[in-house]
Amino acid sequence: MNLVLLSGGSGKRLWPLSNDIRSKQFIKFFKNEEKGEYESMIQLVYRQIKNIDKDAKVTIATSKTQVASIYNQIGEDVGVSIEPCRRDTFPAIALATSYLHDVQGVPEDEAVVVCPVDPYVHEDYFEALKELGLQAEKGEANLVLMGIEPTYPSEKYGYIIPESKDNTSFVKEFKEKPDLETAKNYISQGALWNGGVFAYKLKYVLDRAHELIDFTDYQDLFEKYETLTKISFDYAVVEKEDKIQVQRFSGEWKDLGTWNTLTEAMEETTIGKAILNDKCENVHVVNELGVPVVCMGLKDVVVSASAQGILVSDKEQSSYIKPYVDGLDEQIMFADKAWGSFKVIDVDSGSMTIKVTLNPGHKMNYHSHDLRNEIWNVISGDGIAVIDGMETPVKAGDVITMEAGCKHTIIANTELHLIEVQVGEEINTEDKHKYELEYK
Amino acid sequence: MNLVLLSGGSGKRLWPLSNDIRSKQFIKFFKNEEKGEYESMIQLVYRQIKNIDKDAKVTIATSKTQVASIYNQIGEDVGVSIEPCRRDTFPAIALATSYLHDVQGVPEDEAVVVCPVDPYVHEDYFEALKELGLQAEKGEANLVLMGIEPTYPSEKYGYIIPESKDNTSFVKEFKEKPDLETAKNYISQGALWNGGVFAYKLKYVLDRAHELIDFTDYQDLFEKYETLTKISFDYAVVEKEDKIQVQRFSGEWKDLGTWNTLTEAMEETTIGKAILNDKCENVHVVNELGVPVVCMGLKDVVVSASAQGILVSDKEQSSYIKPYVDGLDEQIMFADKAWGSFKVIDVDSGSMTIKVTLNPGHKMNYHSHDLRNEIWNVISGDGIAVIDGMETPVKAGDVITMEAGCKHTIIANTELHLIEVQVGEEINTEDKHKYELEYK
Repeated sequence: MNLVLLSGGSGKRLWPLSNDIRSKQFIKFFKNEEKGEYESMIQLVYRQIKNIDKDAKVTIATSKTQVASIYNQIGEDVGVSIEPCRRDTFPAIALATSYLHDVQGVPEDEAVVVCPVDPYVHEDYFEALKELGLQAEKGEANLVLMGIEPTYPSEKYGYIIPESKDNTSFVKEFKEKPDLETAKNYISQGALWNGGVFAYKLKYVLDRAHELIDFTDYQDLFEKYETLTKISFDYAVVEKEDKIQVQRFSGEWKDLGTWNTLTEAMEETTIGKAILNDKCENVHVVNELGVPVVCMGLKDVVVSASAQGILVSDKEQSSYIKPYVDGLDEQIMFADKAWGSFKVIDVDSGSMTIKVTLNPGHKMNYHSHDLRNEIWNVISGDGIAVIDGMETPVKAGDVITMEAGCKHTIIANTELHLIEVQVGEEINTEDKHKYELEYK
Repeated sequence: MNLVLLSGGSGKRLWPLSNDIRSKQFIKFFKNEEKGEYESMIQLVYRQIKNIDKDAKVTIATSKTQVASIYNQIGEDVGVSIEPCRRDTFPAIALATSYLHDVQGVPEDEAVVVCPVDPYVHEDYFEALKELGLQAEKGEANLVLMGIEPTYPSEKYGYIIPESKDNTSFVKEFKEKPDLETAKNYISQGALWNGGVFAYKLKYVLDRAHELIDFTDYQDLFEKYETLTKISFDYAVVEKEDKIQVQRFSGEWKDLGTWNTLTEAMEETTIGKAILNDKCENVHVVNELGVPVVCMGLKDVVVSASAQGILVSDKEQSSYIKPYVDGLDEQIMFADKAWGSFKVIDVDSGSMTIKVTLNPGHKMNYHSHDLRNEIWNVISGDGIAVIDGMETPVKAGDVITMEAGCKHTIIANTELHLIEVQVGEEINTEDKHKYELEYK
């Protein structure tokens, strides 16, 4: 199976666990019983796919800001089609399809299945994706969509009206988000939710792409990506296509876009340090801080805490969070990097203190700052610091001081933790020059 | 006026703002409109006293763990009678009275007024204390109590039944915490709340003390304090005294012992960074962290966050917090010290990182550790570090490394902030040797 997972941009609807850098699919919400640790949606989905088809060729279509997190969380075996900028779904799917063909060598008559990375599902869903691919390869239709059996008359999904109630049917028409009564009416006619999941033969989308965009191959398309017009896959392809089939899926499928829906999928009521008294009812806590959250006498409330901030919300109300947190002009307090991660632990006037974790064998960029001095306090692990070209082995307890202008990096042998103290009148992320590192 | 403020021990009923070290009277809850900053209960009370009587001789009776916070918050002009250990209220009041006589030189026929440090009151309360003292000096009775006009039939206060409803009356009897019906009945008879506020001529309590304890003067009493029997002032004095008067007080008086009552006294609904959406009703936030608290659709809830943890509680339920937070086997995450304050900003295996603030002109103890190395990263201010007897001037950006065994301190010229990184296999507060500092 060739699978393209669309990994969308960041968003703050799950603030404070998602921020301008960390998208919700990277938050570790789900208990992996085997490993006894929590995993993110992207880890869960990737593991589910590999369980049902260990040879599945998985490509993640995403922006470059997510690449480090993807490699950190699921390893570097996965294919990644990097969108140089945001150009809506048609260019993104065209680029990923072209990547599969030109980089991964997938033949033109094989099926490609596209689905969002963030539905909460079980393995039966991925079995259904396989079926979707097989149906696309049959060639009865140019596109085969997954139609999700509605569990309630939702007003927030698009609907697919099939010609028949058979498991596989041609599509009669598509309907946009309806009101409640209309939704009930659709469902009585056998309508299905459109979860944005579909399959096609690789050649089909490649042909559509060549019709709409002047490019030779993947590399060419990648390079001219910024010049492309923004256009959705629905508008560019689906609406113009007559031969579309839909396959019914009746397994569990949840869109975990808000705190409200997310907590429904949590296996335990709390993640992280939390104490709830017995007067709490339907309360969920997700706490990424090292100190406890104590809840007393709450009902239908979600509490979440991270280095970014603290949310306390009625579950129903939590879906309206966006304007409140968009208004926060906030410093990024934590982020995953290609080499590890960091967390801001103190902000003061003229200084900032950061806890840095480097993964074994990884190094940060070789860089310098114009306006601040930095001090590295190594607290665990060992590695090699490179300061203005000079290599020095470092271990727990060692201190490296770097004046403004000095080029520096650190290469971790083992997992390495350090406390970085930045001191300067102006501290900002723009004050950074990167250099090539000649490391022997 | 000679005033003894009883400043009681720590307690966790206002966790996470109070911890094993910081008692509730030191938490900065109250807006000082003139200064545009928040002040603690002890600061508020001290300012109120000085406003109505700038010559009032104020003595705080407390344990030594609070002395640093008292001096930090209200300066070093205040008298402090330090109880070497806890021996209940009679020994504490005897010690403070003896301190007033022998250290402060208060004559035996002057009145002493004793009151708890933590009622939430206005200046009329302190005017009433003055009256209480004047009445005691008249000598009609040996003890003059303040009787607070009840505002509701409380089951948690003791009651004073006066002989008449006059403003000043002899006391007929005392009643312990009653049930609701009994409380109503008391109130209909003109009963008053006993707020633990009373006045006496200095000689009166000094005589009672000499009757019960064999001591010569303050210094002697201080030295043998540990050998004293625990006994309450009520039991040792009040119950044996026939000539007791009570003066009515009808001004505002609130016992702010729980989050529920405390939030009622807050002038604004939030302290610190907080955003409440318009679906919040009767919500209070006290946030000592640098990151925001966002509340959505909550009703009758208090949220409080500090380096120690996060509380989210229904207001009514908040009075039951004690067993939940007593169960937390917690690291002290912040504390006031004689020289400034500290806050833990990272805890990892084999390391701890602390932000230290030194007040101008102050220094920490000269000390060493056996099992850990320490690194000071100075982030603002300047001072003198003394390392194994060597003095070095330090300023923002400087780094001092201290191996285990090395004696060290830092003396602040200006307010000085530093990030202290501790690295060692065993990090605990017991690993500390103190030395005399010979500083030139």
